[in-house]
Amino acid sequence: MRVLGVDPGLTRCGLGVVEGTPGRPPRLIAVGLIKTPADLDVAKRLVRIEAGIDEWITEHQPDAVAVERVFAQHNVRTVMGTAQASGVAMVVAARRGLPVALHTPSEVKAAVTGSGRAGKEQVTTMVTRILKLDVRPTPADAADALALAICHVWRGGVTSRLQEAAGSRAELEAKAQAQSRLQVARLRAAVAAQSGQR
Amino acid sequence: MRVLGVDPGLTRCGLGVVEGTPGRPPRLIAVGLIKTPADLDVAKRLVRIEAGIDEWITEHQPDAVAVERVFAQHNVRTVMGTAQASGVAMVVAARRGLPVALHTPSEVKAAVTGSGRAGKEQVTTMVTRILKLDVRPTPADAADALALAICHVWRGGVTSRLQEAAGSRAELEAKAQAQSRLQVARLRAAVAAQSGQR
Repeated sequence: MRVLGVDPGLTRCGLGVVEGTPGRPPRLIAVGLIKTPADLDVAKRLVRIEAGIDEWITEHQPDAVAVERVFAQHNVRTVMGTAQASGVAMVVAARRGLPVALHTPSEVKAAVTGSGRAGKEQVTTMVTRILKLDVRPTPADAADALALAICHVWRGGVTSRLQEAAGSRAELEAKAQAQSRLQVARLRAAVAAQSGQR
Repeated sequence: MRVLGVDPGLTRCGLGVVEGTPGRPPRLIAVGLIKTPADLDVAKRLVRIEAGIDEWITEHQPDAVAVERVFAQHNVRTVMGTAQASGVAMVVAARRGLPVALHTPSEVKAAVTGSGRAGKEQVTTMVTRILKLDVRPTPADAADALALAICHVWRGGVTSRLQEAAGSRAELEAKAQAQSRLQVARLRAAVAAQSGQR
Protein backbone atom coordinates (compact mmCIF):
# COMPACT_ATOMS: atom_id res chain seq x y z
CA MET A 1 0.00 0.00 0.00
CA ARG A 2 1.40 3.34 -1.07
CA VAL A 3 0.17 6.40 0.83
CA LEU A 4 0.60 10.13 0.21
CA GLY A 5 0.52 12.09 3.47
CA VAL A 6 -0.42 15.77 3.27
CA ASP A 7 0.27 18.22 6.10
CA PRO A 8 -1.87 21.08 4.79
CA GLY A 9 -0.80 24.71 4.99
CA LEU A 10 -0.88 27.81 2.80
CA THR A 11 2.73 28.86 3.37
CA ARG A 12 4.19 25.36 3.59
CA CYS A 13 2.27 22.25 2.59
CA GLY A 14 4.22 19.10 3.50
CA LEU A 15 4.04 16.04 1.23
CA GLY A 16 5.37 12.56 1.98
CA VAL A 17 4.92 9.23 0.21
CA VAL A 18 5.67 5.92 1.91
CA GLU A 19 4.99 2.34 0.92
CA GLY A 20 4.33 -0.61 3.19
CA THR A 21 1.87 -3.06 4.59
CA PRO A 22 0.56 -3.31 8.14
CA GLY A 23 2.99 -5.55 9.96
CA ARG A 24 6.14 -4.46 8.07
CA PRO A 25 8.32 -1.34 8.36
CA PRO A 26 7.36 1.13 5.60
CA ARG A 27 9.87 2.61 3.16
CA LEU A 28 10.30 6.15 1.90
CA ILE A 29 9.25 6.90 -1.68
CA ALA A 30 9.39 10.71 -1.69
CA VAL A 31 9.23 13.73 0.57
CA GLY A 32 8.74 17.38 -0.32
CA LEU A 33 7.09 20.70 0.27
CA ILE A 34 4.85 23.08 -1.66
CA LYS A 35 5.65 26.66 -0.69
CA THR A 36 3.51 29.62 -1.71
CA PRO A 37 4.41 33.28 -1.15
CA ALA A 38 2.44 35.19 1.50
CA ASP A 39 2.02 38.22 -0.78
CA LEU A 40 0.12 36.20 -3.38
CA ASP A 41 -3.70 36.20 -3.47
CA VAL A 42 -5.07 33.29 -1.36
CA ALA A 43 -7.02 31.87 -4.31
CA LYS A 44 -3.84 31.71 -6.41
CA ARG A 45 -1.92 30.12 -3.55
CA LEU A 46 -4.60 27.43 -3.37
CA VAL A 47 -4.31 26.86 -7.13
CA ARG A 48 -0.56 26.25 -6.73
CA ILE A 49 -1.23 23.79 -3.90
CA GLU A 50 -3.83 22.02 -6.05
CA ALA A 51 -1.41 21.75 -8.97
CA GLY A 52 1.43 20.56 -6.72
CA ILE A 53 -0.59 17.78 -5.07
CA ASP A 54 -2.00 16.77 -8.44
CA GLU A 55 1.55 16.41 -9.83
CA TRP A 56 2.63 14.32 -6.85
CA ILE A 57 -0.32 11.96 -7.27
CA THR A 58 0.45 11.57 -10.97
CA GLU A 59 4.12 10.94 -10.30
CA HIS A 60 3.88 8.65 -7.28
CA GLN A 61 0.50 6.93 -7.87
CA PRO A 62 -0.55 6.45 -4.23
CA ASP A 63 -3.37 4.05 -3.31
CA ALA A 64 -4.69 6.44 -0.67
CA VAL A 65 -4.19 9.98 0.60
CA ALA A 66 -3.99 10.82 4.32
CA VAL A 67 -4.64 14.44 5.30
CA GLU A 68 -4.15 15.97 8.72
CA ARG A 69 -7.51 16.76 10.30
CA VAL A 70 -7.68 20.47 11.11
CA PHE A 71 -9.43 21.73 14.21
CA ALA A 72 -11.04 25.11 14.75
CA GLN A 73 -9.44 25.36 18.18
CA HIS A 74 -5.90 25.59 16.74
CA ASN A 75 -3.97 28.74 15.84
CA VAL A 76 -6.77 31.11 14.85
CA ARG A 77 -4.52 33.29 12.69
CA THR A 78 -3.60 30.51 10.28
CA VAL A 79 -6.38 27.94 10.72
CA MET A 80 -8.57 29.22 7.87
CA GLY A 81 -5.75 28.92 5.32
CA THR A 82 -4.90 25.47 6.68
CA ALA A 83 -8.53 24.36 6.41
CA GLN A 84 -8.79 25.71 2.86
CA ALA A 85 -5.59 23.92 1.85
CA SER A 86 -6.89 20.69 3.41
CA GLY A 87 -10.14 21.03 1.46
CA VAL A 88 -8.17 21.41 -1.75
CA ALA A 89 -6.01 18.36 -0.94
CA MET A 90 -9.13 16.28 -0.26
CA VAL A 91 -10.77 17.32 -3.52
CA VAL A 92 -7.67 16.59 -5.62
CA ALA A 93 -7.53 13.04 -4.23
CA ALA A 94 -11.26 12.28 -4.14
CA ARG A 95 -11.97 13.41 -7.70
CA ARG A 96 -9.46 10.80 -8.88
CA GLY A 97 -11.36 8.19 -6.91
CA LEU A 98 -8.63 7.80 -4.28
CA PRO A 99 -9.73 7.09 -0.70
CA VAL A 100 -9.08 10.06 1.58
CA ALA A 101 -8.35 9.51 5.26
CA LEU A 102 -8.19 12.14 7.96
CA HIS A 103 -6.00 11.60 11.00
CA THR A 104 -5.74 13.95 13.96
CA PRO A 105 -2.31 15.28 14.99
CA SER A 106 -2.48 13.27 18.20
CA GLU A 107 -3.34 10.04 16.35
CA VAL A 108 -0.32 10.58 14.12
CA LYS A 109 2.02 11.41 17.01
CA ALA A 110 0.78 8.40 18.96
CA ALA A 111 1.30 6.12 15.95
CA VAL A 112 4.94 7.08 15.36
CA THR A 113 6.19 8.02 18.84
CA GLY A 114 3.86 6.24 21.24
CA SER A 115 2.64 9.52 22.71
CA GLY A 116 -0.15 11.72 21.41
CA ARG A 117 1.60 14.68 23.00
CA ALA A 118 5.04 14.21 21.41
CA GLY A 119 6.85 17.32 20.19
CA LYS A 120 7.85 18.05 16.58
CA GLU A 121 11.46 16.99 17.27
CA GLN A 122 10.39 13.59 18.56
CA VAL A 123 8.13 13.02 15.55
CA THR A 124 11.01 13.84 13.17
CA THR A 125 13.37 11.57 15.11
CA MET A 126 10.97 8.64 14.96
CA VAL A 127 10.15 9.19 11.26
CA THR A 128 13.90 9.20 10.51
CA ARG A 129 14.34 5.96 12.45
CA ILE A 130 11.23 4.16 11.11
CA LEU A 131 12.13 4.92 7.47
CA LYS A 132 15.86 4.28 8.13
CA LEU A 133 16.85 7.67 6.69
CA ASP A 134 20.41 8.99 6.77
CA VAL A 135 19.26 12.56 7.25
CA ARG A 136 16.37 14.01 9.21
CA PRO A 137 13.59 15.22 6.89
CA THR A 138 13.09 18.99 7.15
CA PRO A 139 11.17 21.19 7.65
CA ALA A 140 8.78 19.80 10.27
CA ASP A 141 5.90 19.99 7.75
CA ALA A 142 7.66 17.45 5.51
CA ALA A 143 8.37 15.13 8.47
CA ASP A 144 4.74 15.48 9.59
CA ALA A 145 3.52 14.48 6.13
CA LEU A 146 5.66 11.32 6.33
CA ALA A 147 4.35 10.62 9.83
CA LEU A 148 0.78 10.89 8.51
CA ALA A 149 1.53 8.46 5.70
CA ILE A 150 3.23 6.01 8.11
CA CYS A 151 0.27 6.27 10.50
CA HIS A 152 -2.12 5.45 7.67
CA VAL A 153 -0.10 2.48 6.41
CA TRP A 154 0.17 1.07 9.93
CA ARG A 155 -3.54 1.43 10.48
CA GLY A 156 -4.08 -0.52 7.27
CA GLY A 157 -6.16 2.28 5.74
CA VAL A 158 -8.73 1.82 8.49
CA THR A 159 -10.06 5.37 8.68
CA SER A 160 -10.68 5.63 4.97
CA ARG A 161 -12.67 2.43 4.78
CA LEU A 162 -14.76 3.58 7.73
CA GLN A 163 -15.39 6.91 6.10
CA GLU A 164 -16.79 5.13 3.07
CA ALA A 165 -19.25 3.26 5.22
CA ALA A 166 -22.32 5.25 6.16
CA GLY A 167 -24.13 4.67 9.44
CA SER A 168 -22.80 4.63 12.95
CA ARG A 169 -19.36 5.89 11.99
CA ALA A 170 -18.25 7.03 15.43
CA GLU A 171 -18.98 3.60 16.88
CA LEU A 172 -17.16 1.75 14.11
CA GLU A 173 -14.25 4.15 14.35
CA ALA A 174 -13.86 3.63 18.10
CA LYS A 175 -13.84 -0.15 17.54
CA ALA A 176 -11.29 0.06 14.72
CA GLN A 177 -9.08 2.44 16.65
CA ALA A 178 -8.93 0.03 19.55
CA GLN A 179 -7.90 -2.75 17.13
CA SER A 180 -5.33 -0.69 15.29
CA ARG A 181 -3.89 0.78 18.50
CA LEU A 182 -2.83 -2.70 19.51
CA GLN A 183 -1.31 -3.39 16.11
CA VAL A 184 0.51 -0.03 16.00
CA ALA A 185 1.92 -0.62 19.50
CA ARG A 186 3.32 -3.98 18.33
CA LEU A 187 4.90 -2.46 15.23
CA ARG A 188 6.44 0.39 17.18
CA ALA A 189 7.97 -2.08 19.59
CA ALA A 190 9.38 -4.04 16.64
CA VAL A 191 10.92 -0.91 15.11
CA ALA A 192 12.37 0.20 18.43
CA ALA A 193 13.93 -3.24 18.93
CA GLN A 194 15.26 -3.19 15.36
CA SER A 195 16.83 0.27 15.59
CA GLY A 196 18.30 -0.67 18.98
CA GLN A 197 20.10 -3.54 17.24
CA ARG A 198 21.71 -1.31 14.63
CA MET B 1 -19.97 43.07 -14.96
CA ARG B 2 -21.36 39.65 -14.16
CA VAL B 3 -20.57 38.24 -10.72
CA LEU B 4 -21.06 34.79 -9.19
CA GLY B 5 -21.55 35.00 -5.43
CA VAL B 6 -20.77 31.89 -3.38
CA ASP B 7 -21.97 31.43 0.21
CA PRO B 8 -19.80 28.43 1.06
CA GLY B 9 -21.06 25.49 3.10
CA LEU B 10 -20.81 21.72 3.08
CA THR B 11 -24.51 21.01 3.60
CA ARG B 12 -25.82 23.97 1.60
CA CYS B 13 -23.62 26.05 -0.69
CA GLY B 14 -25.54 29.08 -2.00
CA LEU B 15 -24.90 30.34 -5.54
CA GLY B 16 -26.15 33.57 -7.08
CA VAL B 17 -25.30 35.34 -10.34
CA VAL B 18 -26.13 39.01 -10.92
CA GLU B 19 -25.14 41.43 -13.63
CA GLY B 20 -24.69 45.17 -13.33
CA THR B 21 -22.33 48.11 -13.22
CA PRO B 22 -21.55 50.34 -10.26
CA GLY B 23 -24.14 53.11 -10.40
CA ARG B 24 -27.02 51.02 -11.78
CA PRO B 25 -29.35 48.49 -10.12
CA PRO B 26 -28.11 44.95 -10.84
CA ARG B 27 -30.30 42.25 -12.38
CA LEU B 28 -30.71 38.60 -11.48
CA ILE B 29 -29.18 36.02 -13.81
CA ALA B 30 -29.50 32.86 -11.71
CA VAL B 31 -29.82 31.63 -8.14
CA GLY B 32 -29.37 28.15 -6.74
CA LEU B 33 -27.98 25.81 -4.16
CA ILE B 34 -25.58 22.86 -4.05
CA LYS B 35 -26.69 20.40 -1.37
CA THR B 36 -24.56 17.48 -0.22
CA PRO B 37 -25.70 14.74 2.17
CA ALA B 38 -24.23 14.75 5.69
CA ASP B 39 -23.62 10.98 5.60
CA LEU B 40 -21.26 11.26 2.63
CA ASP B 41 -17.48 11.38 3.13
CA VAL B 42 -16.31 15.03 3.39
CA ALA B 43 -13.88 14.63 0.48
CA LYS B 44 -16.71 13.44 -1.79
CA ARG B 45 -18.95 16.28 -0.63
CA LEU B 46 -16.20 18.72 -1.60
CA VAL B 47 -15.91 17.06 -5.03
CA ARG B 48 -19.65 17.62 -5.59
CA ILE B 49 -19.28 21.27 -4.58
CA GLU B 50 -16.32 21.64 -6.94
CA ALA B 51 -18.27 20.11 -9.83
CA GLY B 52 -21.34 22.23 -9.08
CA ILE B 53 -19.46 25.55 -9.01
CA ASP B 54 -17.53 24.56 -12.12
CA GLU B 55 -20.81 23.92 -13.96
CA TRP B 56 -22.23 27.26 -12.87
CA ILE B 57 -19.14 29.12 -14.10
CA THR B 58 -19.34 27.31 -17.46
CA GLU B 59 -23.04 28.05 -17.80
CA HIS B 60 -23.13 31.65 -16.59
CA GLN B 61 -19.64 32.89 -17.55
CA PRO B 62 -19.11 35.38 -14.70
CA ASP B 63 -16.35 38.01 -14.89
CA ALA B 64 -15.55 37.56 -11.20
CA VAL B 65 -16.40 35.33 -8.26
CA ALA B 66 -17.17 36.72 -4.80
CA VAL B 67 -16.85 34.32 -1.87
CA GLU B 68 -17.89 34.96 1.72
CA ARG B 69 -14.85 35.35 3.94
CA VAL B 70 -14.97 32.74 6.71
CA PHE B 71 -13.74 33.53 10.20
CA ALA B 72 -12.39 31.13 12.79
CA GLN B 73 -14.50 32.78 15.48
CA HIS B 74 -17.79 31.62 13.92
CA ASN B 75 -19.70 28.42 14.66
CA VAL B 76 -16.89 26.02 15.61
CA ARG B 77 -18.91 22.92 14.74
CA THR B 78 -19.34 23.83 11.08
CA VAL B 79 -16.53 26.30 10.41
CA MET B 80 -14.02 23.74 9.12
CA GLY B 81 -16.40 22.43 6.47
CA THR B 82 -17.29 25.99 5.52
CA ALA B 83 -13.60 26.92 5.20
CA GLN B 84 -12.89 23.82 3.10
CA ALA B 85 -15.83 24.59 0.81
CA SER B 86 -14.62 28.20 0.46
CA GLY B 87 -11.13 26.97 -0.46
CA VAL B 88 -12.64 24.75 -3.15
CA ALA B 89 -14.75 27.63 -4.52
CA MET B 90 -11.66 29.87 -4.67
CA VAL B 91 -9.61 27.25 -6.51
CA VAL B 92 -12.33 26.54 -9.08
CA ALA B 93 -12.52 30.25 -9.97
CA ALA B 94 -8.81 31.09 -9.77
CA ARG B 95 -7.63 28.18 -11.91
CA ARG B 96 -9.84 29.54 -14.72
CA GLY B 97 -8.12 32.91 -14.31
CA LEU B 98 -11.18 34.59 -12.79
CA PRO B 99 -10.60 37.25 -10.12
CA VAL B 100 -11.71 36.03 -6.70
CA ALA B 101 -12.93 38.52 -4.11
CA LEU B 102 -13.61 37.87 -0.46
CA HIS B 103 -16.19 39.93 1.39
CA THR B 104 -16.99 39.64 5.08
CA PRO B 105 -20.59 38.98 6.15
CA SER B 106 -20.80 42.46 7.67
CA GLU B 107 -19.52 44.12 4.46
CA VAL B 108 -22.21 42.28 2.51
CA LYS B 109 -24.98 43.11 4.99
CA ALA B 110 -23.90 46.76 5.07
CA ALA B 111 -23.86 46.92 1.27
CA VAL B 112 -27.41 45.63 0.80
CA THR B 113 -29.21 46.77 3.96
CA GLY B 114 -27.16 49.70 5.25
CA SER B 115 -26.34 47.87 8.49
CA GLY B 116 -23.49 45.42 9.07
CA ARG B 117 -25.61 43.80 11.77
CA ALA B 118 -28.73 43.14 9.70
CA GLY B 119 -30.50 39.80 10.20
CA LYS B 120 -30.99 37.13 7.51
CA GLU B 121 -34.61 38.23 6.96
CA GLN B 122 -33.57 41.81 6.26
CA VAL B 123 -30.88 40.69 3.82
CA THR B 124 -33.41 38.55 1.92
CA THR B 125 -35.92 41.42 1.88
CA MET B 126 -33.38 43.87 0.46
CA VAL B 127 -32.07 41.37 -2.11
CA THR B 128 -35.67 40.77 -3.27
CA ARG B 129 -36.22 44.53 -3.57
CA ILE B 130 -32.87 45.38 -5.23
CA LEU B 131 -33.27 42.68 -7.89
CA LYS B 132 -37.03 43.43 -8.25
CA LEU B 133 -37.95 39.78 -7.69
CA ASP B 134 -41.54 38.58 -7.41
CA VAL B 135 -40.64 35.94 -4.84
CA ARG B 136 -38.14 35.96 -2.00
CA PRO B 137 -35.10 33.78 -2.80
CA THR B 138 -34.84 30.83 -0.40
CA PRO B 139 -33.12 29.37 1.52
CA ALA B 140 -31.08 32.10 3.24
CA ASP B 141 -27.86 30.65 1.71
CA ALA B 142 -29.16 31.43 -1.79
CA ALA B 143 -30.18 34.97 -0.78
CA ASP B 144 -26.76 35.46 0.84
CA ALA B 145 -25.01 34.40 -2.35
CA LEU B 146 -27.02 37.02 -4.28
CA ALA B 147 -26.21 39.64 -1.62
CA LEU B 148 -22.49 38.82 -2.03
CA ALA B 149 -22.70 39.22 -5.80
CA ILE B 150 -24.61 42.52 -5.46
CA CYS B 151 -22.06 43.77 -2.93
CA HIS B 152 -19.25 42.96 -5.34
CA VAL B 153 -20.93 44.63 -8.34
CA TRP B 154 -21.66 47.74 -6.29
CA ARG B 155 -18.08 47.92 -5.10
CA GLY B 156 -16.99 47.78 -8.72
CA GLY B 157 -14.85 44.70 -8.12
CA VAL B 158 -12.67 46.74 -5.79
CA THR B 159 -11.51 43.96 -3.47
CA SER B 160 -10.44 41.63 -6.26
CA ARG B 161 -8.33 44.26 -7.99
CA LEU B 162 -6.67 45.07 -4.69
CA GLN B 163 -6.00 41.44 -4.03
CA GLU B 164 -4.16 41.23 -7.33
CA ALA B 165 -1.90 44.07 -6.32
CA ALA B 166 0.93 43.09 -4.04
CA GLY B 167 2.30 45.48 -1.46
CA SER B 168 0.55 47.43 1.24
CA ARG B 169 -2.76 45.72 0.72
CA ALA B 170 -4.36 46.66 4.02
CA GLU B 171 -3.69 50.34 3.40
CA LEU B 172 -5.05 50.28 -0.13
CA GLU B 173 -8.05 48.30 1.00
CA ALA B 174 -8.93 50.81 3.72
CA LYS B 175 -8.73 53.62 1.17
CA ALA B 176 -10.86 51.78 -1.38
CA GLN B 177 -13.42 50.78 1.23
CA ALA B 178 -13.86 54.40 2.22
CA GLN B 179 -14.44 55.30 -1.44
CA SER B 180 -16.82 52.46 -2.16
CA ARG B 181 -18.75 52.97 1.08
CA LEU B 182 -19.81 56.38 -0.21
CA GLN B 183 -20.83 54.97 -3.57
CA VAL B 184 -22.74 52.08 -2.03
CA ALA B 185 -24.61 54.46 0.28
CA ARG B 186 -25.68 56.53 -2.75
CA LEU B 187 -26.88 53.45 -4.63
CA ARG B 188 -28.80 52.15 -1.66
CA ALA B 189 -30.55 55.47 -1.30
CA ALA B 190 -31.46 55.37 -5.01
CA VAL B 191 -32.90 51.86 -4.72
CA ALA B 192 -34.86 52.77 -1.58
CA ALA B 193 -36.30 55.81 -3.32
CA GLN B 194 -37.17 53.72 -6.36
CA SER B 195 -38.90 50.94 -4.44
CA GLY B 196 -40.75 53.58 -2.42
CA GLN B 197 -42.21 54.88 -5.68
CA ARG B 198 -43.59 51.51 -6.74
